[in-house]
Amino acid sequence: MPVHPSATTILTAFDNVPAFARGHVRDLRIRWALEEIGRDYTPQFLDAMAPKPAEYRDWQPFGQVPAFDDGTVRLFESGAILLYLGEQDQRLLPRDPAGRWNATSWLIAALNSVEPMVMQIVNLDVFQAGKPWAAEARPSTVEQVKARLKSTERALGDKQWIADDFSVADIAMITVLRNLDGSELLDRFPGLAEYKARGEQRPSFERALADQLAGFRQPA
Amino acid sequence: MPVHPSATTILTAFDNVPAFARGHVRDLRIRWALEEIGRDYTPQFLDAMAPKPAEYRDWQPFGQVPAFDDGTVRLFESGAILLYLGEQDQRLLPRDPAGRWNATSWLIAALNSVEPMVMQIVNLDVFQAGKPWAAEARPSTVEQVKARLKSTERALGDKQWIADDFSVADIAMITVLRNLDGSELLDRFPGLAEYKARGEQRPSFERALADQLAGFRQPA
Repeated sequence: MPVHPSATTILTAFDNVPAFARGHVRDLRIRWALEEIGRDYTPQFLDAMAPKPAEYRDWQPFGQVPAFDDGTVRLFESGAILLYLGEQDQRLLPRDPAGRWNATSWLIAALNSVEPMVMQIVNLDVFQAGKPWAAEARPSTVEQVKARLKSTERALGDKQWIADDFSVADIAMITVLRNLDGSELLDRFPGLAEYKARGEQRPSFERALADQLAGFRQPA
Repeated sequence: MPVHPSATTILTAFDNVPAFARGHVRDLRIRWALEEIGRDYTPQFLDAMAPKPAEYRDWQPFGQVPAFDDGTVRLFESGAILLYLGEQDQRLLPRDPAGRWNATSWLIAALNSVEPMVMQIVNLDVFQAGKPWAAEARPSTVEQVKARLKSTERALGDKQWIADDFSVADIAMITVLRNLDGSELLDRFPGLAEYKARGEQRPSFERALADQLAGFRQPA
């Protein structure tokens, strides 16, 4: 799909989030993907703590970030934006059908079979921290997360990336796993911890992270 | 992408799940999509209660259903299979870029911004039912779900389908909303309840549901 070369790529991001969320907001996924293919973009900032205007909800119905506009399409949901960028550059998504759909399967798995369990840990440890029921809920939640991490580690095996070549599936999975930073959970899965580190060591990831962190108005 | 016309489309499904899960297992999404385009398939059954063989985990790493094989690609995750089928038939996914990526955004939103909250309600009401902490956890979980339902209902407005024409986004969103059957939550969102009913009244949905229910070995 041709993208008008002079159009500006706009990506929404927050310029104000609590300290624990910095470096973990989902626009990081798109910044990372754009860095991998050397494509410029312009962040459009919103305050995470303020109500979102109706016109933003017409673009991003849940008032979240990121939303994306490149002059050709306007879309939302980090997973959809990653797939869109993947179609435009084979460094993000293989062109052969078997490779392409394996990577797509893994991108969806990161978002639908791993992230929901991981975010439950974040919910208990951060948003519900200190509530007695959160401590009681944690063991069963931990078991659910561990089951998914075990399956993911088995599938990774001794491969470098989850779907053979580096792809948007790794951007999704590694940013999902990063939400477990600060918990003890990845300690039990050294293969996944190494995989996460491998992603975080890519220069494109480092640039994307630095740019997200630089976008916050106030020091954490 | 050409699909060899003589190849059999194989879809994995469970032939044994607890009563509450019948009619809600995710192979329903793919059965529904295949019915919409009049495409035959052969279910390959597994027992949800039994350990999955290693060869199945090589295909579906989490041991879940559905997994899919049409002789051209082998993939997993219902969201990925829906996108794959959508590319093959415009009755499932529009061809114009704006429509296609809007529908893709909504498919991902169903799986990543709505389903995780909905499944937390199912977790509390079904899997953790009777535990004192589950009752204490419910109010904050309900608030999270309601926020996402409110945003979805606003975006639907007076449209028939979430992304204008019927698409895989509706298959994903409506099957997600069906997990709230038996809770009181959709009562507060009549627009979404009507939308869900509109999907459930499609003949393709009815055939898919009947076929899933007919596949269980023992009566519920």
